[in-house]
Amino acid sequence: MTKRIHNFSAGPAALPLSVLEQVQRELLDFQGTGMSIMEMSHRGKVYEAVHNEAIADIKKLLGLGDEHAVLFMGGGGRTQFAVLAMNLLHPGTFAEYANTGTWAETAYKEGKKLGDAREIWSSAKDKHTHVPQPGDLDGKINGQAAYFHYTSNNTIYGTEWQHIPNAGKVPLVCDMSSDFLSRPVEATRFGVIYAGAQKNVGPAGVTVVIVRKDLLARSRPELPDLFSWAKIEKENSLLNTPPAFNIYVVGLVAKDLLAHGGLNAMTEHNKKKAELLYKAIDGSSGFYRPHAKANSRSLMNVTYRLPSEELEEKFASEAKKASMEGLKGHRSVGGIRASIYNAVSYESVQTLVSFMEEFKKKNG
Amino acid sequence: MTKRIHNFSAGPAALPLSVLEQVQRELLDFQGTGMSIMEMSHRGKVYEAVHNEAIADIKKLLGLGDEHAVLFMGGGGRTQFAVLAMNLLHPGTFAEYANTGTWAETAYKEGKKLGDAREIWSSAKDKHTHVPQPGDLDGKINGQAAYFHYTSNNTIYGTEWQHIPNAGKVPLVCDMSSDFLSRPVEATRFGVIYAGAQKNVGPAGVTVVIVRKDLLARSRPELPDLFSWAKIEKENSLLNTPPAFNIYVVGLVAKDLLAHGGLNAMTEHNKKKAELLYKAIDGSSGFYRPHAKANSRSLMNVTYRLPSEELEEKFASEAKKASMEGLKGHRSVGGIRASIYNAVSYESVQTLVSFMEEFKKKNG
Repeated sequence: MTKRIHNFSAGPAALPLSVLEQVQRELLDFQGTGMSIMEMSHRGKVYEAVHNEAIADIKKLLGLGDEHAVLFMGGGGRTQFAVLAMNLLHPGTFAEYANTGTWAETAYKEGKKLGDAREIWSSAKDKHTHVPQPGDLDGKINGQAAYFHYTSNNTIYGTEWQHIPNAGKVPLVCDMSSDFLSRPVEATRFGVIYAGAQKNVGPAGVTVVIVRKDLLARSRPELPDLFSWAKIEKENSLLNTPPAFNIYVVGLVAKDLLAHGGLNAMTEHNKKKAELLYKAIDGSSGFYRPHAKANSRSLMNVTYRLPSEELEEKFASEAKKASMEGLKGHRSVGGIRASIYNAVSYESVQTLVSFMEEFKKKNG
Repeated sequence: MTKRIHNFSAGPAALPLSVLEQVQRELLDFQGTGMSIMEMSHRGKVYEAVHNEAIADIKKLLGLGDEHAVLFMGGGGRTQFAVLAMNLLHPGTFAEYANTGTWAETAYKEGKKLGDAREIWSSAKDKHTHVPQPGDLDGKINGQAAYFHYTSNNTIYGTEWQHIPNAGKVPLVCDMSSDFLSRPVEATRFGVIYAGAQKNVGPAGVTVVIVRKDLLARSRPELPDLFSWAKIEKENSLLNTPPAFNIYVVGLVAKDLLAHGGLNAMTEHNKKKAELLYKAIDGSSGFYRPHAKANSRSLMNVTYRLPSEELEEKFASEAKKASMEGLKGHRSVGGIRASIYNAVSYESVQTLVSFMEEFKKKNG
């Protein structure tokens, strides 16, 4: 029998079992073509339908219309840190960034290599335990900025924005890599949303980039082809051979989401899991200490410390023996991190919570 | 029963059935971990072993030692056109290119966007029916060039270099996307080799980049992280989340090659297929007219015309009905293109040749 564990990995992360089973079934002969999806032309009708359905389904989930384009690119979210600046941050302009954690800061630093990127908010002094609250950025975003960039969920620190900041007419650019398609979002408010697939929506190797089409005019013709959002959009992400298998899996995940009630149903599922876990932390009389402040808690990555590093090691190692994978915190924060993305079941979180209670009894 | 057809697609293309079967078997539970290879951390021991074995096996196949690094990147071969120039073509230097077809020319044009790229040889006036012969470039490559770039196999035109050009001390840079690991090659002679995986070695979404380590010093620190070969090499292609599934499949293909005699055995297999097919063309009394000159014929992509475009349409469509896929030529050349990469069997080529004979009888 196939063994499946409780997968709390931070990314690459758990995928829906039904999706994996479908991939497995179709792997040698996709839709009666006698070829694997990995073996067929990206210019053929069969793949193009897969490609276009994935785009349409992502748009449907996010309520996006013709004003936005959905692109598929390689290189991960981190490549977009530079590609963003290449497309939108030109000489004579500047862009503003909120620094809410490692990736937010890396995005800012990459922007700075290519243009006038400015950090206008930072939680670095506070060990990134919180993100801006409604109102915190009022009057801080310069109306002349080329864009304002933020990271909606900070995988390493376990914090997540609970609101969309008001940037006025300044295009909002958001790295949603670690909470993309995990909750409803007013996507039409964004100039750019990008997300590496490997948290909630698919295997590593494809990045979903959503661009408001009027911004494409800012991509300069002299940009290398594969870094130009405008050129990629013009060819519907088929300018060159796309990561077809990866896009196919993303499409299956999107279909699976739609079949199960879309983002409203998903956020209910995610809230229920996160509440159970935060309740266990808050009710532990300080044995488990949360990293994130209550107003900034992530529904995706729950980060907490134990009384000592030794106990944290023991916790992660005993959890692993009990079929719970990926609980060790990121080296820059330490402690425990339970990533509870879309595909992690309520049952997996229940298993973790029971384990936490037992562990506390034995070691508290 | 699983249907499998004769797959002559130009890329993405046929993969070894045994590799696909292994992927299928392992898809839900990789090596007893209870996770798919798509679901696990790229920093965990299980994935790292897969990653490092893929690198080691590629090196073994090519006889490479410590002087060269094998990198995995996203974005396809075409992204490397720009990344190459970003890493090696600096102000005050120039690079030279041979234009042997569409991709060679695109590489040159991308280089020109970023620096002083110069075309020193072209077959454009001759409809790219041939590539340079030994001696053709003698005295043409400037000893001061930052590199000399060529495309070893021209997928669209069906031509392939039969020798490695002598560039003296100038680093040789080769786009081997469409004949990588299809024949033995003195890989140590190259400064850079890069190849999108989707022809001979895996699914689209990963590019293998081989760089002679002394050239890494030329990558400037101010380059965006994910475009810097030096930074990627320093982190063993784990600077960010790599396209893990795609790399895993590339690794399986490399192991499969090693298990079947490596590149010497593979070139015998490929020659046998190509000879059969070219013999059918040459013996057709002009019904099938080869595009490539005899001295430049590709073992990977066999391109030919029929007496009329109507017959070419008919040929491709009837072949499709007879379970032969992907035979329509690229729109820029027309005609028929049979891509007979590593994973295409001799039996598939026999089937095609029989079909060609029958088709000629009926329509000749």
